[in-house]
Amino acid sequence: MLEMNGQFDERLPLYEKVAGKISFLIEKGTLRPGDKVPSIRNLSKQMQVSINTVKEAYSLLEDRRLLEARPQSGYYVRARLPELPAEPVVDRPDINPAEVSLSKVYQEVMMDFHDQNLLQLGIAVPNIDLLPVEKLHRMLAREIRRFPTQAVSYDLPPGNLRLRKQVAQRLLLSGCTLSPDQIVITSGCVEAVVLSLRTLCKPGDAVAIETPVYFNFLQMIEDLGLKALEIPASPRGGISLEALEYALERNAGEVKACIVLSNFNNPLGSKMSDEDKQRLVQLLDGHQVPLIEDDIYGDLSYSDDRPSVAKAYDKTGNVLLCSSFSKTVAPGYRVGWIAAGRYQKQIERGKMLGSVACASPPQLAIAEFLANGGYDHHLRSIRRVYARQAAQMGDAIGRAFPEGTRVSRPQGGFVLWVEMPEGVDSILLYKKAKSHGVAIAPGSIFSVDGKYRNCIRLNAASWAPAVEVAIDTLGKLAAEQLNSSSR
Amino acid sequence: MLEMNGQFDERLPLYEKVAGKISFLIEKGTLRPGDKVPSIRNLSKQMQVSINTVKEAYSLLEDRRLLEARPQSGYYVRARLPELPAEPVVDRPDINPAEVSLSKVYQEVMMDFHDQNLLQLGIAVPNIDLLPVEKLHRMLAREIRRFPTQAVSYDLPPGNLRLRKQVAQRLLLSGCTLSPDQIVITSGCVEAVVLSLRTLCKPGDAVAIETPVYFNFLQMIEDLGLKALEIPASPRGGISLEALEYALERNAGEVKACIVLSNFNNPLGSKMSDEDKQRLVQLLDGHQVPLIEDDIYGDLSYSDDRPSVAKAYDKTGNVLLCSSFSKTVAPGYRVGWIAAGRYQKQIERGKMLGSVACASPPQLAIAEFLANGGYDHHLRSIRRVYARQAAQMGDAIGRAFPEGTRVSRPQGGFVLWVEMPEGVDSILLYKKAKSHGVAIAPGSIFSVDGKYRNCIRLNAASWAPAVEVAIDTLGKLAAEQLNSSSR
Repeated sequence: MLEMNGQFDERLPLYEKVAGKISFLIEKGTLRPGDKVPSIRNLSKQMQVSINTVKEAYSLLEDRRLLEARPQSGYYVRARLPELPAEPVVDRPDINPAEVSLSKVYQEVMMDFHDQNLLQLGIAVPNIDLLPVEKLHRMLAREIRRFPTQAVSYDLPPGNLRLRKQVAQRLLLSGCTLSPDQIVITSGCVEAVVLSLRTLCKPGDAVAIETPVYFNFLQMIEDLGLKALEIPASPRGGISLEALEYALERNAGEVKACIVLSNFNNPLGSKMSDEDKQRLVQLLDGHQVPLIEDDIYGDLSYSDDRPSVAKAYDKTGNVLLCSSFSKTVAPGYRVGWIAAGRYQKQIERGKMLGSVACASPPQLAIAEFLANGGYDHHLRSIRRVYARQAAQMGDAIGRAFPEGTRVSRPQGGFVLWVEMPEGVDSILLYKKAKSHGVAIAPGSIFSVDGKYRNCIRLNAASWAPAVEVAIDTLGKLAAEQLNSSSR
Repeated sequence: MLEMNGQFDERLPLYEKVAGKISFLIEKGTLRPGDKVPSIRNLSKQMQVSINTVKEAYSLLEDRRLLEARPQSGYYVRARLPELPAEPVVDRPDINPAEVSLSKVYQEVMMDFHDQNLLQLGIAVPNIDLLPVEKLHRMLAREIRRFPTQAVSYDLPPGNLRLRKQVAQRLLLSGCTLSPDQIVITSGCVEAVVLSLRTLCKPGDAVAIETPVYFNFLQMIEDLGLKALEIPASPRGGISLEALEYALERNAGEVKACIVLSNFNNPLGSKMSDEDKQRLVQLLDGHQVPLIEDDIYGDLSYSDDRPSVAKAYDKTGNVLLCSSFSKTVAPGYRVGWIAAGRYQKQIERGKMLGSVACASPPQLAIAEFLANGGYDHHLRSIRRVYARQAAQMGDAIGRAFPEGTRVSRPQGGFVLWVEMPEGVDSILLYKKAKSHGVAIAPGSIFSVDGKYRNCIRLNAASWAPAVEVAIDTLGKLAAEQLNSSSR
């Protein structure tokens, strides 16, 4: 029963393969909640792997909240989290392009980040303690000594060649075969998306975009004089292709681009299936609407494999794939990239005219880190932590928030989407929480017209006693609102 | 006669003051071409300064091509360069906004920069050998060790505080009293100008701009769907205020911004007088047209003083002053800034939405370099070299180019504008020069509609035997064109 088979990626470390096997048995119901799993010694014998490998595998499964250790007894399949609230049901808004109204709340949420007295759960920044700070800085110092002239000089678009080679190589894992010449280095993923919008759209055009969605994109769409066409998304599978198709037909000719966060979408944490990615590419291709694919969280999958991207199914150059190293390596290095398909030359020109080039020293450092810094090993370790912490925060929300609250169960990344009962006003909650020293992101800034008023997004990148207290506080504040409104 | 007086900046080193005094006497005609100046020993006694100070002063004046040493005889006032061609006369184009037409030549000129087999005289990059590479990199390595967390984290707009403090402090030299909160760090000067245009204009609006002008700005105006209103400029005093006033009146309401390179304009090298800067600010204020002032070459004055900026006369917050350290310290660090007056908040928002933040490590390094790197000392030494080289290249052009060629005599920066006889086609010259391994910038890309067809811009940042050969080649190619056309 427990022999290894070929379904797991051969590049994975052995303990991940062992863990994958056990996960598979739990998923299929062969091992059920409450069942005791084989002892470490037995499994080691059965699978012909070392004791340590099994220990590591079980510890990984504990992190993923699939197993629990019972003292003096062994490992058991965890009860499927009966205390965890169900997933949020996402509204299905009107399928008409809407002008984005400027949100003062957005400004305030961004300003919160400057306030060092606040516990920051509002902005989706990675946990600094999980970044490879020392190694990266050491590499930066070394690379500028190795390439002193290059480090002070312009690296004009498309940008540093070695870095582009590394990115192209890693793209194989996402299912893309691209040459370094098909990649442009950008100042983070945001610049890649903005360059795409500027290339594809002119004022008055409409952009199809998931809802709820990362608020910066909505502000950006407003600033460019574009209209947002919100397409419903589910917390599991992402954008609704049926709704998108319907919307494209109703607004034929008006929609000039579609932005999709295909993997571990912010804020829902959803992940599109390979099949849906392929359908998405075909659908947009058929309507001659370019796809701006944001894969910034793609490397932060909680499961063994790096998911594919929609770009992998792109046969016509219609997909502009954007990402960066801001969530995994160093937000402050501002190193992102875009594989812009048939828009490559226009994106290079846009980058040149907008800011000439990206800073050279960070490009040198990230290229070296990707080549020799153990990026994969780093990813494995932080993905584990983020998976555990997202589950811990989800559990804590289940305990602390009013009955009827639902929370997303992301499959990657580090943000949670929380839907509270209708009576809770998240803007009010946001203000109250700040007076208690906690910064959160209220749901309404994730839509064009103040939808998701009873939702919030929380950053689960750090789990610490202070965060647990903050979750308790948020739960109490939400409950107070409900009580006072029902009085 | 030679006692020191108060007209020179007290902060200058003594030898610069002595040199200034002699320059003054030459300028006023007290010392005339061919006159012998006092011997080193005599001047040292007269001015009560050391022998070395006088030696340094005379050597500076030699660099500036005001004095020449005659062996066994002493120093003489140089003949006022009879061989140097007069300055170019700049066309006075139509005063009507024009759509910028995309220039394929522009694309080609930018691509040349990637070609390492070409001698690069086409792009206005500083001489790498004159950048403080080692010191800067050492400081970068040290700062990321000192502030490891800050270096990997976002430094959201307005950007690094210490850097903004340093910039604000230096702005005192340009006549501006600004607080760090009135400055936003940008990815170079170009991003500062683009952010300004995006904030101030919407498609269809007109932008008043000098002609000829830095070609990237014209391409940018085209990309933003704006119209360029070209205002004649002279190689000495810069933009014609009379023409600007006339144009503003004729196009009232249509012009939404005015871009001026007030000091050592690219490509003419012109510098506006303090009086004209003040008039410019008042004129634009009166017409409620914001001024985007580009001062990127301001620190590269060939004379003793750092010139003022128009922003110094801004009483209403109508001036957006843009600059960077790309010409003086490190183009590849991409550190620029903007003091955006009453548009501060909008520029911060634009920066945030366009690329979130600038890379943190370069900001840390430039802040430290400005605080402790000897920036002023560095500037004094490179300004001398650039002054000498611009004169050397100007002389060489006078010798090598066909009769009737005129060349600019810049007062700062490191580019020369060369106007050849009407029969020379600079696009043809550009193509021919490339086949001889030399990259230049043809004049027509400095205007909207292919004016300046008989002009070229040359980068005088380096002077070496290969450059001298290149100038010879260019001269011969230009002469060939004239001969073949007169045949």
